[in-house]
Amino acid sequence: MDKWKIRSSSFVLDNKWVKIRQDKVELPNGKVIDDYFVWESDNHAMVVPFTSDNKLIFVKQYKHGIGEIMIEFPAGYVGKDEKPEDAVKREFEEETGYVSDDITFLRKVIHYPTKETGCLYLFLAKNVKKEKEIKLDSTENIEILEVTIKEALDMIQRGEIWASGTICALYLALEKMKLLKII
Amino acid sequence: MDKWKIRSSSFVLDNKWVKIRQDKVELPNGKVIDDYFVWESDNHAMVVPFTSDNKLIFVKQYKHGIGEIMIEFPAGYVGKDEKPEDAVKREFEEETGYVSDDITFLRKVIHYPTKETGCLYLFLAKNVKKEKEIKLDSTENIEILEVTIKEALDMIQRGEIWASGTICALYLALEKMKLLKII
Repeated sequence: MDKWKIRSSSFVLDNKWVKIRQDKVELPNGKVIDDYFVWESDNHAMVVPFTSDNKLIFVKQYKHGIGEIMIEFPAGYVGKDEKPEDAVKREFEEETGYVSDDITFLRKVIHYPTKETGCLYLFLAKNVKKEKEIKLDSTENIEILEVTIKEALDMIQRGEIWASGTICALYLALEKMKLLKII
Repeated sequence: MDKWKIRSSSFVLDNKWVKIRQDKVELPNGKVIDDYFVWESDNHAMVVPFTSDNKLIFVKQYKHGIGEIMIEFPAGYVGKDEKPEDAVKREFEEETGYVSDDITFLRKVIHYPTKETGCLYLFLAKNVKKEKEIKLDSTENIEILEVTIKEALDMIQRGEIWASGTICALYLALEKMKLLKII
């Protein structure tokens, strides 16, 4: 199966917050499309934080894209010259005030491969402990939730947790920790 | 927890394929941000298709955003005046040539609530059968895969399946079908 060829490319929107690229592409069958738009989004990193008694830490905050209060795992964007593991540690401590000395890489996923370049790096943190005061940006207003695994799964079932990255991360973490069995 | 107020709003990019909105927003603490960009993306619908012997149908195709060949569940966009359940039925039949008379709604998820408006409607299809020839757009070049549940989970573990929507949909479908147990 062949990839498409990019014949030419330019940015139709390019500022600090959003970069939209317009590609002229040639398909394997020779067809040319003049206006294929790609959102050059940032990479993000997200952590599934377990306390020593297997409770999960979530953050609850307003998200302006969808215009709703969302419950998700702590996450943040990965800077250009930053490693995902450094970004996730930084964001986790700043957003929640929790720390962990046992953070391991879980999986790289992508939300929207059709239109987007940014990936989401998922991490698993064990033995997390509240140690620091929360340092927030002025745009952040965050509530921290500590819930059991069963409660988290019920919140997914009730639609209270509905962000795909968080749902995906939770199941992958449970599988990694051998807490999940396929019958 | 309060939402942000939109003081004014305009489109900085608005064509058939991509719509980017720039909001001037007021935060609960009074702070004003002039340039919060929101991607007004389409809703999509995705189906987790099980054959009568519990095999899963995946589609393998090139995705130009990330520039890779991806393995995902069949999905497509939901038209403005279309119901997600109609969209998913249409896309499933067109992309795969399989049909099902037992498609039920599973869950609504969102990929990127911080910046995006579009949601992903997930459906579960049982007893799917190959019945029709594939009707493809000229931009589509699709391979159909039929794999066992165990194989699909292994493909996730090996990183061959790495789209968050597909991973999320698979675990939610397995839970719905009571094929998954939390220990």
